[in-house]
Amino acid sequence: MTGRIANETELIQTYLAPLAAPGAFGLMDDAALIVVEQGFDLVVTTDPIIEGVHFFADDMASDIAWKALAVNVSDLVAKGAEPIAYTMALAFPHAPLKTWMADFSAGLADAQAAFGCALIGGDTDRTTGPLSISITAMGRVPRGCFIRRQGARVGDHVFVTGAIGDAALGLKFREPGGGMQAAISKVDRRALVQRYLRPQPRLNAVQLLRQFATAALDVSDGLVQDAARLADGAGARLAMSIADVPLSPPTRAVLAAQADMIGTVVAGGDDYEVLFSVRPDNVGAVRACARDNALPIADLGVLASGAGVTVSGPDGKPLLLTVGGYDHFRGTTSAAS
Amino acid sequence: MTGRIANETELIQTYLAPLAAPGAFGLMDDAALIVVEQGFDLVVTTDPIIEGVHFFADDMASDIAWKALAVNVSDLVAKGAEPIAYTMALAFPHAPLKTWMADFSAGLADAQAAFGCALIGGDTDRTTGPLSISITAMGRVPRGCFIRRQGARVGDHVFVTGAIGDAALGLKFREPGGGMQAAISKVDRRALVQRYLRPQPRLNAVQLLRQFATAALDVSDGLVQDAARLADGAGARLAMSIADVPLSPPTRAVLAAQADMIGTVVAGGDDYEVLFSVRPDNVGAVRACARDNALPIADLGVLASGAGVTVSGPDGKPLLLTVGGYDHFRGTTSAAS
Repeated sequence: MTGRIANETELIQTYLAPLAAPGAFGLMDDAALIVVEQGFDLVVTTDPIIEGVHFFADDMASDIAWKALAVNVSDLVAKGAEPIAYTMALAFPHAPLKTWMADFSAGLADAQAAFGCALIGGDTDRTTGPLSISITAMGRVPRGCFIRRQGARVGDHVFVTGAIGDAALGLKFREPGGGMQAAISKVDRRALVQRYLRPQPRLNAVQLLRQFATAALDVSDGLVQDAARLADGAGARLAMSIADVPLSPPTRAVLAAQADMIGTVVAGGDDYEVLFSVRPDNVGAVRACARDNALPIADLGVLASGAGVTVSGPDGKPLLLTVGGYDHFRGTTSAAS
Repeated sequence: MTGRIANETELIQTYLAPLAAPGAFGLMDDAALIVVEQGFDLVVTTDPIIEGVHFFADDMASDIAWKALAVNVSDLVAKGAEPIAYTMALAFPHAPLKTWMADFSAGLADAQAAFGCALIGGDTDRTTGPLSISITAMGRVPRGCFIRRQGARVGDHVFVTGAIGDAALGLKFREPGGGMQAAISKVDRRALVQRYLRPQPRLNAVQLLRQFATAALDVSDGLVQDAARLADGAGARLAMSIADVPLSPPTRAVLAAQADMIGTVVAGGDDYEVLFSVRPDNVGAVRACARDNALPIADLGVLASGAGVTVSGPDGKPLLLTVGGYDHFRGTTSAAS
């Protein structure tokens, strides 16, 4: 297995067809068939990743593949949907090495197995630009259970799954030229980079979200920006305290060494956790359901009358955040506080 | 309305949200909802177009938009599906001009109205590469009516809709530097270029295909290559005669002036017509159904035992085709006869 892929047929038959779902006819047709069971609706999302924007050219192919699917599955999960299938459009600047393609399809196979979905179609092109992987993922949700961004109201509690900030710090450590230097252990550093490279969509949140969430979205553009979207959707205000934001031990270690990383933690993005709201009288049931599903959740506060989102620091004063969610379109960060 | 788009919010709210379907929540959510009616299945296809590969940078934005959606709808139609909705991932090398974006969304609005579908979601990114428009289109088909590439058998008649070769010749005329010089009228030339710029998916073929087609695919990679796919799917051979290939008056005019363009006509691609097979005892009913739907169709011959596809020329001898379907992955043409 040396050299480059010779043509589209080899690419599809050798590396992609083994990933195909039954309705995909071995990827030999121009379209795929999805049978949606009675009582379910289909949820669709599109989130491409591009070399140099969402991943580095020298990231492992299996990690790139994992991320390409994970960021889409994360959107489905936040809407209360179980993943079913996905299409993938690949644009290559040059014919990939066979070893690269084998690693890429192995990463996709891992992700498919972890997320419970399969490839049903796509397209392969050459481009004069960077490598781009454009996945459209489809999931199913019981009729009436789709969870919107809008839907929360004043008085609702806002929760977030897992821990915030790991991936954004992981990116800082992963950056070219050795990345950020901070006095934390190699193990912690590796754990943070891994969270950036291999986001873990919260599939075990789907049941809880369907049952209790009044609104939900995944945290991809930073906790502050995504919380602002949820609060805006409710026409409400959310005042968070940094003490309530769930942080992993490696992130705590970074903050102990470099307190100014707090902005990156709460506004850096790439978390792929789920931010959701629940009615106040469901808070107890939500905690019990999370425990039953081994799902870590943290209460970020209650939606209040007003507008906007703040995060108060250890001293109780609102943080002045200069790092904001990433506007892919402008390619710049924006103030988010 | 001058200058460039300032940010992603302006792009979405001003230019894309007006195109959104009801299940798309004004493009303000991370995913869209599709309700598939009982008795129907969903058909999904992905066909991106990239500047410099599928269109020219100086094509009109409205034409680029039309083509981006049309090539996907063409795949749905060939499978017997009516279009419902699509997602669109845009990757821009730089912030587009407002005038460009207004023209682009006008082209999409035209295409949506013509094809009966609406935008339900997507994503916008910056790229260091060329402009890329990656659409995933969804349609619905009555359960059991999905038409595969495979499914024809020896004895089936093979038909094609419309006329073949116009778009491939149109591309020759459209090429930078003034394009091909051939002694045809300006009106004919413009008609061919238009067929390249604005493919017309055969929506009025859907009923006929559902009722009669044993196999079908759209002609995007050239009649010869796509006929070979249909014949391969049947484990059969198809011997066509150029006399049976439907040609428009402008294409006949080009061939009268430049007979060596015949290879471009039968193997050049971008036709977006539908190639399909029917049982021999349905031929009469198929012709009647086509007439009722104002759908031009031509009988290309009968699938016979054997393998491969040939086209015999005016002298009855097989054409030696040197122009083949485009392998986007290799970026080269391949011999197709």
